[in-house]
Amino acid sequence: MRATILYGPGDVRVEDRPRPVIEQPTDAIIRVEAACVCGSDLWPYRGVADYGPAAAMGHEYVGVVEAVGDAVQQIKPGDFTVGSFMASDGACEICASGYQSRCAVGLRVRGAQAEYLRVPLADGTLVATPGMPDAVLVPSLLTASDVLGTGWFAAAAAEVGPGKTVAVVGDGAVGLLGVLAAGRLGAERIIAMSRNPARQALATAFGATEIVTERGDDAVARVKELTGGLGAHSVIEAVGTQEAVEQAIHACRPGGHVGFVGLGHEVKLNGLDLFYAGVHLHGGPAPVRRFLPELIRLIWERAINPGLVFDLTLPLEQAPAAYKAMDQRQAVKALLLP
Amino acid sequence: MRATILYGPGDVRVEDRPRPVIEQPTDAIIRVEAACVCGSDLWPYRGVADYGPAAAMGHEYVGVVEAVGDAVQQIKPGDFTVGSFMASDGACEICASGYQSRCAVGLRVRGAQAEYLRVPLADGTLVATPGMPDAVLVPSLLTASDVLGTGWFAAAAAEVGPGKTVAVVGDGAVGLLGVLAAGRLGAERIIAMSRNPARQALATAFGATEIVTERGDDAVARVKELTGGLGAHSVIEAVGTQEAVEQAIHACRPGGHVGFVGLGHEVKLNGLDLFYAGVHLHGGPAPVRRFLPELIRLIWERAINPGLVFDLTLPLEQAPAAYKAMDQRQAVKALLLP
Repeated sequence: MRATILYGPGDVRVEDRPRPVIEQPTDAIIRVEAACVCGSDLWPYRGVADYGPAAAMGHEYVGVVEAVGDAVQQIKPGDFTVGSFMASDGACEICASGYQSRCAVGLRVRGAQAEYLRVPLADGTLVATPGMPDAVLVPSLLTASDVLGTGWFAAAAAEVGPGKTVAVVGDGAVGLLGVLAAGRLGAERIIAMSRNPARQALATAFGATEIVTERGDDAVARVKELTGGLGAHSVIEAVGTQEAVEQAIHACRPGGHVGFVGLGHEVKLNGLDLFYAGVHLHGGPAPVRRFLPELIRLIWERAINPGLVFDLTLPLEQAPAAYKAMDQRQAVKALLLP
Repeated sequence: MRATILYGPGDVRVEDRPRPVIEQPTDAIIRVEAACVCGSDLWPYRGVADYGPAAAMGHEYVGVVEAVGDAVQQIKPGDFTVGSFMASDGACEICASGYQSRCAVGLRVRGAQAEYLRVPLADGTLVATPGMPDAVLVPSLLTASDVLGTGWFAAAAAEVGPGKTVAVVGDGAVGLLGVLAAGRLGAERIIAMSRNPARQALATAFGATEIVTERGDDAVARVKELTGGLGAHSVIEAVGTQEAVEQAIHACRPGGHVGFVGLGHEVKLNGLDLFYAGVHLHGGPAPVRRFLPELIRLIWERAINPGLVFDLTLPLEQAPAAYKAMDQRQAVKALLLP
């Protein structure tokens, strides 16, 4: 089969690889119907993270189940499924508490930018759709696998709810879908931070009520100005740079909530700054699996259209071009069709 | 009147100062019945923080109201009152949300280690007891002013509740009263971290069910061992050193809650470490005022006895000895009687 392999910074190739097979009785093999490039795939692509000498890339996927191991009971061959980027057993105490991305026996899913994918712990990881989706729903279902689930988690972590003012730091796909999530979760006002007209338009389409174009301290000052000097009730941080994280914390009012999903490498939080901010801080790798049933339902009912974040669709063979476009911010999010 | 003044690191003196007067119509003047030395008073005493050339010390107090300004309506001369270390108007949106320590017009209360004290925003800051307290209740009421209120906030920030396992980092007065708070809030297990026998005994008296004597990574390993490998549901951080903060975060399970009230100077949180910890982090200067009515009720009904943290009681004149004893960890907490 064809698969996307990263050899080192900037060096991504589509190559022939052996088709995956059932290795554990809890595995499923899916035929990938669509995959995409994640912002986090750009870390090793840019040399910020090291995934090893020849890394099978991709962790966002939808696909039809080809085969399952003997211990798989819920998921069946022929199911159209959406899965999380983290495999989880769905049975441990951590999964039960809604943190499937930190499952006690959890495993990373890797190699989704390919024709076939082995998904460990299939029953705890995959969710089947009610039937075969219309083609128009596939991009949206694909977003549920990570980018929508992550934006949704950020909004949940920021305790977004009715009557609240939400600020969103980051106009990438996660930030934009954080805007969408904030709207669905009942936010009264959603302040999107972006200086890119196309992304501003998408933020507005997803429910942003205000746009802030400033950055850093100026952005904080603007959010305070818009909120009677107090700051937002909830802030979504979906970038992961030092400036963005500080901007998120400072734009939040005392007692408010910052949900961070972009917090990345090289960030150092000043203890005293955090102390006097008085905010709630929560985030990390999103437990996408917690939200999948609800997200699939909303997409199936056409209540949300998160697939709009894909502004580039390419055949799998052109994965290198997809990486390049996202790296250079020529595309918000690239979809790959095997 | 006599008052405690800090001139520089290690140089604290009790001197004659003018008696405070009503400056604003919202002020009250109280005759201080008891005050004490806070762990945070040791920051400038140790030269870690700079309070200026001649700082009036003390922010924990109980006392009888002598006079009130024209705009004070709730608090009356003759009331026995407990107040927070932060003055708050009780009327702004931040106060209404329970974060009175970050009141939009809030002011620090300073100079409580003295015979008389001016308390700004008296109606929003002071809470009157149901009557004149028995002498035996005075130390406990004094703790409500900061150290108990702070321990209680830490437990609330750590989302302590029935069925949960709570770990407490720090065996100072705040940590010990965090143990007491965790017990009152229904924790199933309370793991106190201390290697000091006297403090271990007090922790046990306050409700600790287990004691961990290790520190750093060893302490984290021990907490994991005690919690099926997962970590505590809730962790209270009441020290404020780099090691203690990391210990608290790592001892908490993914999705769990860390309440920090000791987070101090020089602490730097690693962004990626925090990201993968997946905990909730909340803390800062405790909104003591939120808890005062409930804490006074519990003390009045003799349901709790937080005054046990005072293991040294001295006349105000001996404030320098009180600072020295706490600095050298010869006393957990020193009470001063004007």
